[in-house]
Amino acid sequence: MNNKLSFKNLLTTQQLTHQDISLLINTAIDLKNTPLTNINAITPFPILASLFFEPSTRTRFSFESAILRLGGNYINLEQANTSSIAKGESLEDMGRVMSDYADIIVLRHPDINSMKAFSQHTTVPVINAGNGSEEHPTQALIDLMTLYEHHQRLDSLTIGFWGDLKYSRTVNSLTKTLASYSNNTFHFIATDDFQVSATCETMLTQQTCNYVKTSSLNDCLEKLDILYVTRTQTERFTKTLSEYLSPLNKDLLQNIPKNCIILHPLPRVNEMSNDIDTLANAHYFKQSQNGLYMRMALIKTLLQNE
Amino acid sequence: MNNKLSFKNLLTTQQLTHQDISLLINTAIDLKNTPLTNINAITPFPILASLFFEPSTRTRFSFESAILRLGGNYINLEQANTSSIAKGESLEDMGRVMSDYADIIVLRHPDINSMKAFSQHTTVPVINAGNGSEEHPTQALIDLMTLYEHHQRLDSLTIGFWGDLKYSRTVNSLTKTLASYSNNTFHFIATDDFQVSATCETMLTQQTCNYVKTSSLNDCLEKLDILYVTRTQTERFTKTLSEYLSPLNKDLLQNIPKNCIILHPLPRVNEMSNDIDTLANAHYFKQSQNGLYMRMALIKTLLQNE
Amino acid sequence: MNNKLSFKNLLTTQQLTHQDISLLINTAIDLKNTPLTNINAITPFPILASLFFEPSTRTRFSFESAILRLGGNYINLEQANTSSIAKGESLEDMGRVMSDYADIIVLRHPDINSMKAFSQHTTVPVINAGNGSEEHPTQALIDLMTLYEHHQRLDSLTIGFWGDLKYSRTVNSLTKTLASYSNNTFHFIATDDFQVSATCETMLTQQTCNYVKTSSLNDCLEKLDILYVTRTQTERFTKTLSEYLSPLNKDLLQNIPKNCIILHPLPRVNEMSNDIDTLANAHYFKQSQNGLYMRMALIKTLLQNE
Repeated sequence: MNNKLSFKNLLTTQQLTHQDISLLINTAIDLKNTPLTNINAITPFPILASLFFEPSTRTRFSFESAILRLGGNYINLEQANTSSIAKGESLEDMGRVMSDYADIIVLRHPDINSMKAFSQHTTVPVINAGNGSEEHPTQALIDLMTLYEHHQRLDSLTIGFWGDLKYSRTVNSLTKTLASYSNNTFHFIATDDFQVSATCETMLTQQTCNYVKTSSLNDCLEKLDILYVTRTQTERFTKTLSEYLSPLNKDLLQNIPKNCIILHPLPRVNEMSNDIDTLANAHYFKQSQNGLYMRMALIKTLLQNE
Repeated sequence: MNNKLSFKNLLTTQQLTHQDISLLINTAIDLKNTPLTNINAITPFPILASLFFEPSTRTRFSFESAILRLGGNYINLEQANTSSIAKGESLEDMGRVMSDYADIIVLRHPDINSMKAFSQHTTVPVINAGNGSEEHPTQALIDLMTLYEHHQRLDSLTIGFWGDLKYSRTVNSLTKTLASYSNNTFHFIATDDFQVSATCETMLTQQTCNYVKTSSLNDCLEKLDILYVTRTQTERFTKTLSEYLSPLNKDLLQNIPKNCIILHPLPRVNEMSNDIDTLANAHYFKQSQNGLYMRMALIKTLLQNE
Repeated sequence: MNNKLSFKNLLTTQQLTHQDISLLINTAIDLKNTPLTNINAITPFPILASLFFEPSTRTRFSFESAILRLGGNYINLEQANTSSIAKGESLEDMGRVMSDYADIIVLRHPDINSMKAFSQHTTVPVINAGNGSEEHPTQALIDLMTLYEHHQRLDSLTIGFWGDLKYSRTVNSLTKTLASYSNNTFHFIATDDFQVSATCETMLTQQTCNYVKTSSLNDCLEKLDILYVTRTQTERFTKTLSEYLSPLNKDLLQNIPKNCIILHPLPRVNEMSNDIDTLANAHYFKQSQNGLYMRMALIKTLLQNE
């Protein structure tokens, strides 16, 4: 099998070919099955620059833990305001300069144009760890890995998305990718205010994918292979979820098929009740754990890509 | 000697048995006497998650330096507001997820209930690095190590506490522990507003410990084996120390016994004058240094506890 | 050649002898030419404390990357307000305590007196990474390295400084150092409000150095070996550069000599146009890259100085 990725920077899920996805999922599963003592450190040990211009712990920690597990180390920025950006430096300049201090760069930034600007003059791989409401490609890869682990395929699946679908970059990124595999069907379960974006619909139509918009979980629950729950992006919106939809709980899931897995990119707030955690269908903590292995796989493969 | 601790998580000093304390003090003193080049790195190298939801440099730095000296590494959070906690995630979920990214976790949090919540679903050891005004068990261990180094015992001691005794988790933690050893006597030296808490008094009464409350240092100075000075917890209180008590200085300590050591958890502000630094009794910088070795000992012993 | 530095702490450029400068430039150029795999790790691996009480990414990242490339690690503070300093601890105490947690310390602080206070009781090397508007000695070393790489000498040079000369610690530090080499000539190009400080002028007069103050770049451009552009220190001043001087651009540099290099400590804001980047004279990204190697050289030499 080809062990090269088709890209140098991972800025959008649209860069991911099916072969890229297979390579990354297989590498991540291999790493997950390898005892820590047997993981070969990358030499000379690489430095990852972890640049977060928006709050995050989960994503940042999983990238930083990933580079440490691979025998490398990191430098980081966990806050925007007290950085040299506060002095007004351009992202283009920052990307160029960071290439001298690190071997690979992870960037989260609120501006959807940030990735393109930052990577204009970089000479080391750049990974998009979230750009505004647009994309979060490594989250999509983690989701794909988790559903592949369970269903052993990425096609012929029925996926229900539940919650804030409009402002969720996670929904955008995952839908785009799954739409490229044959015979996947999408159910978007949300009230009108939070329904999937027009851009996303246009894309699905162009790719002649089956999709349904509904406000009722019961309309589709029994057909689902995956129920994907998302958090209300309160950073991007003022209404809270409880104002428009009651939280998902065990009662509402009485008819969930045995083989349907529940995913959630976490953190959850009040959109999903803790009582669901005891269901065998609940795979979101496994999904969160996969975050470490997928990010190890991505870093390792990108660094050995030349 | 048994080299296992009786606990998996260190959340409160009440978990510390006398055997635990001996094991940790002996391990810490061993590490202090070992040249850096001879310290055996723990393999595979461990990752410590250093989660500080309240400001700290001293405690955070000593934990992070400790894991580095043991051949490990760390991921950290040095500010609360820009974390995923800002998104409203529960401590229970956070603890569960962090267990996938780290091999041991250090948590400081302003909420006294935080430790219990966070450790509910963790699968790796959790260390309390301060929960609100309640406890700070590793500080108590450092204090015990420092006074053991000097007096070679933890019983039959006369301890004077001076300063803000009401809001000090350090005083709470250390008093609880010393009360479990036989024949220790406590002098609480403070004005009424800052006297030791009722909870602490009840505990001492129940354990039939000798204790005295006084507002005058001279009442007890000549009897003391340890004079423990504490900082006014201005984070928790608005009055400054100078408003209710003049700072401790060399003049006030003219009658200090030769064998009495002065401790202070540091940082000091204006409650203790620099002129005391030149006294042979001043052991607070040694105490601060012991912070590194005790935290190395705790991390090492917890990681090798299974 | 002597491989010892004349100082233990680098607090001001005035400590740098010509021999120190040669040693550091040669070591940095050696490191720059050494493949990463061949760089000998310092053992036992050192811990650097990176303490930034003023925002910075470039300087902080280059120090942290430097210690990692040398096989060490770091603990850091990237924000002032949430530190124990917020509790009112003195810099003297902090320096003493940090000596127990790290093998070498880098400090940036807004107060010009901070370096002296902090290093009063330290037992490990301390490096000034910027103290208010006064000094930034490692930036001066990087500048010297970059101009030495091009001109192969540090004397008999004609240097033009352009921009905010009054509030720039970079200009202060570099001018002081170059003034100590024979036959250097200085052109200070700025409007009256931003002209070089009186202190700097007095120093140049005392050392009988040639210098000229002008508001016109064309007065001197054709004579220059180095054109040093500086950013408006908007942190220290409210006017923006555009209010008093139009940005430097390619058009204004039509008569720049072929052998004149353009330096800038970066970050740049709007005082220097991107179109200059394509000129062969533009050496500021090389200068930024040299930051890593000079800081590696300084750390390595200080740690092996005893």
